[in-house]
Amino acid sequence: MEREEVFNFAAGPSVLPRPALERAAAEMLNYNGSGMSVMEMSHRSAFFQEIFDSTKAKLRAALSVPDTHEILFLQGGASLQFSMVPMNLMEGGTADYAVTGNFSNIAMKEAKKYGTVHVAASSQDDNYSYIPQQQALELSADAKYFYYCANNTIYGTAWNYVPQTRAPLVCDMSSEILSHPVDVSLYGLILAGAQKNMAPAGVTVVIMDKSLAGREAPYTPLMMSYKTMIEKDSMYNTPPCWCIYMLGLTLDWLQTQGGVAGMEAIKHEKAALIYDIIDNSRLYKPCAQRQFRSDMNVTFRTADPDMDAQFAKQAQAKGLMNLKGHRSVGGLRASLYNAQPMEGVQALAKFMKEFEVAHHV
Amino acid sequence: MEREEVFNFAAGPSVLPRPALERAAAEMLNYNGSGMSVMEMSHRSAFFQEIFDSTKAKLRAALSVPDTHEILFLQGGASLQFSMVPMNLMEGGTADYAVTGNFSNIAMKEAKKYGTVHVAASSQDDNYSYIPQQQALELSADAKYFYYCANNTIYGTAWNYVPQTRAPLVCDMSSEILSHPVDVSLYGLILAGAQKNMAPAGVTVVIMDKSLAGREAPYTPLMMSYKTMIEKDSMYNTPPCWCIYMLGLTLDWLQTQGGVAGMEAIKHEKAALIYDIIDNSRLYKPCAQRQFRSDMNVTFRTADPDMDAQFAKQAQAKGLMNLKGHRSVGGLRASLYNAQPMEGVQALAKFMKEFEVAHHV
Repeated sequence: MEREEVFNFAAGPSVLPRPALERAAAEMLNYNGSGMSVMEMSHRSAFFQEIFDSTKAKLRAALSVPDTHEILFLQGGASLQFSMVPMNLMEGGTADYAVTGNFSNIAMKEAKKYGTVHVAASSQDDNYSYIPQQQALELSADAKYFYYCANNTIYGTAWNYVPQTRAPLVCDMSSEILSHPVDVSLYGLILAGAQKNMAPAGVTVVIMDKSLAGREAPYTPLMMSYKTMIEKDSMYNTPPCWCIYMLGLTLDWLQTQGGVAGMEAIKHEKAALIYDIIDNSRLYKPCAQRQFRSDMNVTFRTADPDMDAQFAKQAQAKGLMNLKGHRSVGGLRASLYNAQPMEGVQALAKFMKEFEVAHHV
Repeated sequence: MEREEVFNFAAGPSVLPRPALERAAAEMLNYNGSGMSVMEMSHRSAFFQEIFDSTKAKLRAALSVPDTHEILFLQGGASLQFSMVPMNLMEGGTADYAVTGNFSNIAMKEAKKYGTVHVAASSQDDNYSYIPQQQALELSADAKYFYYCANNTIYGTAWNYVPQTRAPLVCDMSSEILSHPVDVSLYGLILAGAQKNMAPAGVTVVIMDKSLAGREAPYTPLMMSYKTMIEKDSMYNTPPCWCIYMLGLTLDWLQTQGGVAGMEAIKHEKAALIYDIIDNSRLYKPCAQRQFRSDMNVTFRTADPDMDAQFAKQAQAKGLMNLKGHRSVGGLRASLYNAQPMEGVQALAKFMKEFEVAHHV
């Protein structure tokens, strides 16, 4: 069946690079002469071990991950990391959390089960429309780590700086990983669910300073010990093999696009196409404050929830899918992840202009 | 690329039904006219919700799951269940464990973190070659549950009865689920990693009596509360969408094969082809005692580890893959899961006879 021309603006799971999907389809029944699908392979087989090792090596290269840091492929999404981080790193002490959106808020609440949580910053006072700046961070003297979410998918904001803290940085990069270069050495632990910018849902990437492993609480499930997972190279048990394979295919595509530097060069351009329309519109209003706007998730709204709904519906009829804002905030949201082609963004820009004209504003 | 003629005897991940793989390849770029791959779909989209609901309904029908029981699609494999079960059901009290192999042994040890473990039975004294019978079970008066593993993948044994206990039964059915009818009402909780008889690695099926939910310990991670997962219909966060989709395709295939009754009818026949050769051989020796033999995992060995290695190597050259026994026990193992075609078993039987003749025993 031929692919219909649709552009998918979903916040995650979300659009994947077409070459990756085409290769997955072509290799489905016979991976590399094995006579098997990747889905049928023992995770201990030479075929899969090569997929695993090369995917890890590609990710290490793409993000210039230093030797001090291990790359783990886990399960359970960022949400399981909300528990795994404090279970392993809090040691019953205090941790600093910056609450700048829904997911950092959930992570903060979850950490209370495992120690003392100090909210070092929050932008809840203005509906998470901004990111607190360095001088506003109230850091604990004895924090085991400082936790933040780099890009807030629901509110469409992104941290425009890397916090400076004495405690190790723990950062949820789920919705921006691989969209720009990162100095991994600044972080104690980076976590990212794959289903936004990397792979299908089902694998979670953790990149951690190995010196932080081995501090888990005694009741930590065996699968949730970073130390165990480092020692077993993510294969204490069967890993999510297919998702790891798909991540490898996405990383192959990323390489052809100039890697994370190539993504950074184009992401501003893609987002600016939409933000410029919003800024010059009498119909659309931005949700996030200008200097904290996310290039990954562009959030906006009209003056009227009914018109928002109409916008999403008419866009869908033109093949522009999943533009409805998150159910908790309403409005509209266009997710412009790495695999979102420029043509998709241009089509959305065109539609936004037409919709504004049609509504005589 | 054409699929080469190989038969995959891996213990998991393992062979999947070819029609399921073919359909996955055909639908890869455009699922049901959506213009998207299933891997790209929002888990909140109508397209994916339909996949989710229909897969759950097919599984409920295939195993005749009563309304008292909920079906959950989780992550982390059976290994995460080894922790999730005691965290949710032990209430700091006592649980009975039957230790009949590697995975029940790990589960038993893991439960010690969360309460008092009572080993109600063990077959370690004879290298897990048998299953303790009902009268040998030493049941605690106050056990919160009785835990066992129905089929022991590494040792090639299977429980030939359902234990009778006052406490709810918790059963790991990872390597035998969907291979025969089960009276689900007898169980408090059934868990099964998908990668043996259901789907690719990355989804874990839990079927549980809803009345057992809501007893989790306070430090239980939010993702590991059965109660939360029941309330959120397995979608507290993004589920492993692709694996759930593949499970649906496998269940479609299962239906064409007469469902679990059809599988039960053929599984004895498939296993008997191999066991008969072993029983009539001077070269091959069975690992499991006759009345406890698994139809899913046939374990055997020659008198000599070098000859075992030679067997596996020569078999592989003929396209009979992954016959090496688990690294912890050595020997040989042929996994004959649902999707293993009769032709594969016949090809293995033929090779076994030829190998025996060639070695002049």
